Amino acid sequence: MADAGRARPGGRTARTRGAVLDATLAELVRHGYAALTVDAVAARAGVNRTTVYRRWGGREGLVAEAVEAFAAGQARVPDTGDVDEDLRRWARSIFDTLATPESAAVVRAVFGGGDSPRLRELRHRWWTVRATLAVPVVARAVERGQLPAGTDPVEVVKHVGAPLYYRLLVLNEELTAAAADLAAAVTAAAAHAGVFVREAS
Amino acid sequence: MADAGRARPGGRTARTRGAVLDATLAELVRHGYAALTVDAVAARAGVNRTTVYRRWGGREGLVAEAVEAFAAGQARVPDTGDVDEDLRRWARSIFDTLATPESAAVVRAVFGGGDSPRLRELRHRWWTVRATLAVPVVARAVERGQLPAGTDPVEVVKHVGAPLYYRLLVLNEELTAAAADLAAAVTAAAAHAGVFVREAS
Repeated sequence: MADAGRARPGGRTARTRGAVLDATLAELVRHGYAALTVDAVAARAGVNRTTVYRRWGGREGLVAEAVEAFAAGQARVPDTGDVDEDLRRWARSIFDTLATPESAAVVRAVFGGGDSPRLRELRHRWWTVRATLAVPVVARAVERGQLPAGTDPVEVVKHVGAPLYYRLLVLNEELTAAAADLAAAVTAAAAHAGVFVREAS
Repeated sequence: MADAGRARPGGRTARTRGAVLDATLAELVRHGYAALTVDAVAARAGVNRTTVYRRWGGREGLVAEAVEAFAAGQARVPDTGDVDEDLRRWARSIFDTLATPESAAVVRAVFGGGDSPRLRELRHRWWTVRATLAVPVVARAVERGQLPAGTDPVEVVKHVGAPLYYRLLVLNEELTAAAADLAAAVTAAAAHAGVFVREAS
């Protein structure tokens, strides 16, 4: 079924997938991860629950795919040719996700809804999806010679996002575009200064 | 009663306070914020519940004071005369708090245990206590001329802590001393470059 969905992206299978993943996010936001059920998702999406079980195996696979698709879909990956501007745009993309009520609700459901091994796995997936998109931005800057050779792109990406997630999830501050620009500028200045260059070990 | 406690820090009132606050943290870690009760705290501390209500007013006041005292008690405020070293030591103090199982359990109970206005208030108190301790470290560096005039000390402090809380609470990574040193070095490099200087508005 999954292969059929990929082969016919505009077909009925793809539409069903979209409806089920949207319904999953809606249930996640409304009831939280712990209370989410396949039955409620199927009812909301207007599909048979057996369709959900056949395709996603159950609750965990369903939520994982919905969150991964959302995390990827929210990201706008910049490639302006200038690393400072790219990092600023990446920070703005994070800001847009965290500051828009609909997407912030998903982020809060994933990151603010208690602690469990499943939730930790979900959070890790979110990060992996986002890092996979953003790391090449930094890698390209190193290739262009805009950042020192040996710069650790994963750490650069972490330091751009950290202040924004920290403000939202830890400090419960309202996010601003200025905060996003600051996070990017701090990370860029440190990167230019060689702080992210890995020690030879 | 609170005044009596302050007037006789080694007295019976102070011992009762310590026992009740310790019991509050233990209950917070064991059962989480939502399930914490004054009765359970009183029983664990071996005091009468009316003592708790008289002194702390109830659950919210009790947890707030326990968390504030803990947040302050965990912090080691550096003053080496060198801002880079001070920031590194402050980051290491955060690392020690977040990486020690006992204190990490408190942090997880406060920051990982769901979302509610009360919990947000508690998280904000944690930040306020810590910022009050750390901001003078940066202010002194500005006075000494080690950082540019106009550097925003609150933002500097946020950027030192953000990557560490982010790793623990968002990415669920194991914290390392190297991660603490990196967060401090990134922030220090950006501060020296003037990134934290507030625009005149």
